Amino acid sequence: MVVSKRMEPLIKGSSAIRMLFEEGKKMALEYGPENVYDFSLGNPSVPAPAIVNETIGRVVKESESLYIHGYMKNAGFDEVREAVAGYLNRRYGASYTMENIIMTVGAAGGINDILNIFLDFDDEVIAFAPFFTEYRNYVKMAGGNLAVVPADYETFQLNIDEFPMYVSEKTKLVIINNPNNPSGVLYSAETLDRLQTALEKAEEKAGHPIYVICDEPYRDLVYDGAEVPFMPDHIKNCLSVYSFSKSLSLPGERIGYTAISPKCDYISEVTAGITCSHRIGCVNAPSLLQLTIKECLETRPDLSVYDTNRKLLYNNLTALGFECLLPQGAFYLFVKSPVKAGKKAESSAKLVELGKKQHLLLVDGTGFGAPGYVRIAYCVDTAMIERSFAAFERLAAECAQLNG
Amino acid sequence: MVVSKRMEPLIKGSSAIRMLFEEGKKMALEYGPENVYDFSLGNPSVPAPAIVNETIGRVVKESESLYIHGYMKNAGFDEVREAVAGYLNRRYGASYTMENIIMTVGAAGGINDILNIFLDFDDEVIAFAPFFTEYRNYVKMAGGNLAVVPADYETFQLNIDEFPMYVSEKTKLVIINNPNNPSGVLYSAETLDRLQTALEKAEEKAGHPIYVICDEPYRDLVYDGAEVPFMPDHIKNCLSVYSFSKSLSLPGERIGYTAISPKCDYISEVTAGITCSHRIGCVNAPSLLQLTIKECLETRPDLSVYDTNRKLLYNNLTALGFECLLPQGAFYLFVKSPVKAGKKAESSAKLVELGKKQHLLLVDGTGFGAPGYVRIAYCVDTAMIERSFAAFERLAAECAQLNG
Repeated sequence: MVVSKRMEPLIKGSSAIRMLFEEGKKMALEYGPENVYDFSLGNPSVPAPAIVNETIGRVVKESESLYIHGYMKNAGFDEVREAVAGYLNRRYGASYTMENIIMTVGAAGGINDILNIFLDFDDEVIAFAPFFTEYRNYVKMAGGNLAVVPADYETFQLNIDEFPMYVSEKTKLVIINNPNNPSGVLYSAETLDRLQTALEKAEEKAGHPIYVICDEPYRDLVYDGAEVPFMPDHIKNCLSVYSFSKSLSLPGERIGYTAISPKCDYISEVTAGITCSHRIGCVNAPSLLQLTIKECLETRPDLSVYDTNRKLLYNNLTALGFECLLPQGAFYLFVKSPVKAGKKAESSAKLVELGKKQHLLLVDGTGFGAPGYVRIAYCVDTAMIERSFAAFERLAAECAQLNG
Repeated sequence: MVVSKRMEPLIKGSSAIRMLFEEGKKMALEYGPENVYDFSLGNPSVPAPAIVNETIGRVVKESESLYIHGYMKNAGFDEVREAVAGYLNRRYGASYTMENIIMTVGAAGGINDILNIFLDFDDEVIAFAPFFTEYRNYVKMAGGNLAVVPADYETFQLNIDEFPMYVSEKTKLVIINNPNNPSGVLYSAETLDRLQTALEKAEEKAGHPIYVICDEPYRDLVYDGAEVPFMPDHIKNCLSVYSFSKSLSLPGERIGYTAISPKCDYISEVTAGITCSHRIGCVNAPSLLQLTIKECLETRPDLSVYDTNRKLLYNNLTALGFECLLPQGAFYLFVKSPVKAGKKAESSAKLVELGKKQHLLLVDGTGFGAPGYVRIAYCVDTAMIERSFAAFERLAAECAQLNG
């Protein structure tokens, strides 16, 4: 191999979801697209709100080209960072200033900025299962290792009880994803307060502050009037990473921000550090899109399609005997595999395999650190979901037959 | 420090040019903007060609929102990668396919993608002085070390004679910048052929292939009818990194591409590897800008302003007794410090200091690995250059007085 030893396994193991997606395309050619039910990718199916393209059109027409396409401070345009801080302060009663906001190349860019500045070779980041699969790769690329606290299979809240066992002197960061991909669960204020208490003990053990990456691309995708707790009210060393990928349906544009809580320990060092790794990694967030989202901060996504899909799938799958929690946020349903097997991982792998036979593309929970479950992304056409129920029914029957 | 040991020195040392830029802003407040001559930043002063904003306006109006702002393959839209490959093939008689092209978050993103996939902890990258200062930081952030071959102060071509001394088993990559920032020099076909010969010996010594990052954001900024040699015609393991930041005046947008030469050793592994680290680092290049540059590939920058500035500065500074090469490309003039001093680094530091007294903001060449020189970025208003000559005259007089 000419690539590094560190990265070699990432190339091989990285593409499980994408491979499934490619398989789906092949199936669509063979069986007709209307007969394949692809629940693999978290790609928004609702177009960006009209204000997005209107703003883009207006900005390129009315503003000076050297400004809208030019370099600004590495952390982003002052006017954009001020608008983001002001918006968060209005919405959450927070006290951010422009200095706490760094515009990023999506949430992935924001997370990488943070990992790159905190991790020395072989340092550790703690995640709670189930977790977004890419975390492991982000951490590995930054030279560190991901330690995973096993899932609390009862509630899929953070498994705080087992967290202390994973803390060591090498622990520099914790990463959580709220609302959670893949479980759709919203972490409660109580859960977050318990995490903060556990962190205080962990910091004593580690001998240094531990910062928490709060990865929140789904913050505005919540249902039934739920509200995501404002993280910095609960977590002291809170580095909030937001992305407009899901809320404004702009995943290809790579635009988001990191908000550094004013309560963070060593805040000037942390801010200078994250800005530094951000500059080295990508210079700045895409300029035209920075100016665009500034005008769309108050825009809420139209969740009606996702909400319809969520209820439709939940009701029909539970009626077929599948077990899952009703998702409170994001656009994923996390379903327990009914297949009896010696190991959880075998059970979910078998369900994925049986699903493919019915042209159902489901993602194995093992990659998310929660074997025994499969993820169903419901950011798809409602009509496809309706067509898929017959396939799910056959899948349930096949599982029952297999279990004997 | 809560940030990593690896990154700590980068935070402190990183901002020399940006600090100078900030100092210039303060000076402007104190002395009036018309009395400050800021030659610090490589920020294009010529607006993006009209076709750029026209295309953006048209695309957001005519194309489907889910397509233009959505996820595509991590390497970029097929149609864009095909267009880039086709363009390079027409222009250079190359034989790229879409598979060789990865759309990137500017040149910085492209370089980081490559460094992250090739470097294990403590591996080495070789640069030739003078080199773009950020290379050291990119390499450090990827866990490696930058080894620097000293400048050939006669010609500022690559110092191939001394290159072999820097090669070891740890050498994984070489990085060159053509046309060169800060010298403005264009590497000749002969220089590149000598590099390839030296690389073949280096690969024997290292025991593995050595890939060359050809960082070419200034490829289309050349003067007097010069043409940049097509790198893969000379360098076998050539990874060309291009950016539209300078040629289309889009530095804030972060859009560029990596072209992997079809002649590269282990090309499938290298391509899969770079695509993998690209995905982990930033998912994909900004989507709307990908679709935009597709329509602007044949658009040449208007170099008339830069060319005027180049000649004006060169003629006047050499008339004042300053020594420098006439730049063939980019928008920098690299001027020898006339200050007599024990060490080259002292000489250029003193010139920068004396320059500030005359409100001239020049960048010390020491950061570029070429002490004894200063960089003048001439991507500025021609009027400011004209106003600056009296200050340069006073600077020359002060240097002469100091030298006695």
